[in-house]
Amino acid sequence: MDNVKIAVDAMGGDNAPFEIVKGAVDAVNEFGSNIILVGPQETVEKELAKYTFDKSKITIKNATEVISTDESPTNAIRRKKDSSIVVGLNLVKNSEASAFVSAGSTGAVLTGGTFIIGRIKGIERPALGTCLPTVSGFTFLLDSGANVDCKSTYLLQFAKMASVYVEHVMGVNNPTVGLINIGAEKEKGNALTKETYELLEGSELNFVGNVEPRDIPFQKADVLVCDGFAGNTVLKFAEGLSSALISIIKDEITAGLYKIPAAFLIKPFKNIKKRFDSEEVGGAPFLGLKSLVVKAHGSSKAKGIKNAIKQCEIFVEKDIVLKIEEQL
Amino acid sequence: MDNVKIAVDAMGGDNAPFEIVKGAVDAVNEFGSNIILVGPQETVEKELAKYTFDKSKITIKNATEVISTDESPTNAIRRKKDSSIVVGLNLVKNSEASAFVSAGSTGAVLTGGTFIIGRIKGIERPALGTCLPTVSGFTFLLDSGANVDCKSTYLLQFAKMASVYVEHVMGVNNPTVGLINIGAEKEKGNALTKETYELLEGSELNFVGNVEPRDIPFQKADVLVCDGFAGNTVLKFAEGLSSALISIIKDEITAGLYKIPAAFLIKPFKNIKKRFDSEEVGGAPFLGLKSLVVKAHGSSKAKGIKNAIKQCEIFVEKDIVLKIEEQL
Repeated sequence: MDNVKIAVDAMGGDNAPFEIVKGAVDAVNEFGSNIILVGPQETVEKELAKYTFDKSKITIKNATEVISTDESPTNAIRRKKDSSIVVGLNLVKNSEASAFVSAGSTGAVLTGGTFIIGRIKGIERPALGTCLPTVSGFTFLLDSGANVDCKSTYLLQFAKMASVYVEHVMGVNNPTVGLINIGAEKEKGNALTKETYELLEGSELNFVGNVEPRDIPFQKADVLVCDGFAGNTVLKFAEGLSSALISIIKDEITAGLYKIPAAFLIKPFKNIKKRFDSEEVGGAPFLGLKSLVVKAHGSSKAKGIKNAIKQCEIFVEKDIVLKIEEQL
Repeated sequence: MDNVKIAVDAMGGDNAPFEIVKGAVDAVNEFGSNIILVGPQETVEKELAKYTFDKSKITIKNATEVISTDESPTNAIRRKKDSSIVVGLNLVKNSEASAFVSAGSTGAVLTGGTFIIGRIKGIERPALGTCLPTVSGFTFLLDSGANVDCKSTYLLQFAKMASVYVEHVMGVNNPTVGLINIGAEKEKGNALTKETYELLEGSELNFVGNVEPRDIPFQKADVLVCDGFAGNTVLKFAEGLSSALISIIKDEITAGLYKIPAAFLIKPFKNIKKRFDSEEVGGAPFLGLKSLVVKAHGSSKAKGIKNAIKQCEIFVEKDIVLKIEEQL
């Protein structure tokens, strides 16, 4: 991957710049990645000085501004021309980098990605994909929050993009596609899901029908499509409910008749956390742009950033943009 | 409550008629309820013969047909005039009963309720309410599945109906109302939630703003409103995810380093199950009709039916229909 360079927003997320820079260094040392760290020159240099790595593999692109998560994305992208997000996206636009990773403001990354890098010709709406853990693996959810109001034609494109991604980046052969819907039968759901069902059924995708929300954790399909409002609801509710349930269960077990010591639960709950660890994937790919943009979780640590960089490299290597174009 | 009679569908749900008839008998013995059991005379008589109770408190209304969950609701309501659901709803329509409880086909109960009993004047869409357990109590979710495509004016009415219900039936003073939305800020969300936010903000309800899906389990509001697609997604996903998580956690704990015996977990998990027990409430009230219809869970046992009957009695006693009319 010597000619593939990944631009990384050194200033994005709750743990920037420390964890971001560390993740970039880890990617260099583990995968031999080529990285451009985008952020204030001095700050990034100071972070890099902490590590040992092949200096030819990381360059710094100076960017003096930072976009915070509470700014209006459109205004921030327009005004903060020297922010790490805008500068990073411009590196991709100008072919100085092949992809961009940021753990910063989701809105700014998506808006900036669409305006600066631009959509693949024919794609109506780019969409954000998330790997949702299931009892037996993962399911790739698209759209998980970029498009709150959707048409059925968008959802058909989401299904196509997600199938390409899951097949070539995640290595799932001929991935199954499900439509999130309240009811298993074709005629169930709202206007959007009924129309989308028809389109998916008539496509060449490996469509397996509606997937009811109660079945989402049970791996009924490799790809799940829905509008971004439903997708974000599922994603965020899963986070909240898991954390609520885990705390309730811990309380009940340690307070129970047998008073199982809390220490006995550390390892099992660590394993559970690992099974649901979003850092294993590293980030949500924003699919449908001319180049890949990965939105890493705001709380990303080095491991998440490292894996997001790897994800970008596979994406470029397998020429996913071309494969998506072929699907349209 | 001597003049209040509750009609109960003896043939609805997975455990009919046994658990339904038992629940009715329990309500008579515990609350002194007056009940009309609707179903095939002989079948119901045979069930009733198993119990001791004040015979003046339960009558049987013969109904020879049963609507199954896989029938088209509209066709079934139109054709099966002698089904327990249609006969039961007609008892309410003709003022022979004050409310109707059924654990049968949700579609048939909602469609039949709307067509036979009819909407309160001014109500655009009746909606199904569900008590969702939280870490510290419950939150009342409306609509949880009756209306998959909604306008903002429907959601405003849902909020009004739910506030009346939660205040007077569940006893929560001046209940807080939240709008399920992906994002805490006013300007976040889709077209529907943005419009609804404005309406709720301008109302006299105790509106506390958007509630993000990740916060749903943490009791941010007593009432949560959303369209029926989002509500049903939340409800059913909660069921699926809880059951997936609980099984994963049990596996990890019993397989862990300390090999905690599975028997030690029986009591804690029983307690957890109890905290999330829908039978404690007994059913989902279908609000906005001229009389109350309660849709009990398909898997309802006697306890759920008994509590659904109690819920109906409070509803009638507190004159909730009148209070909803006053809110419009």
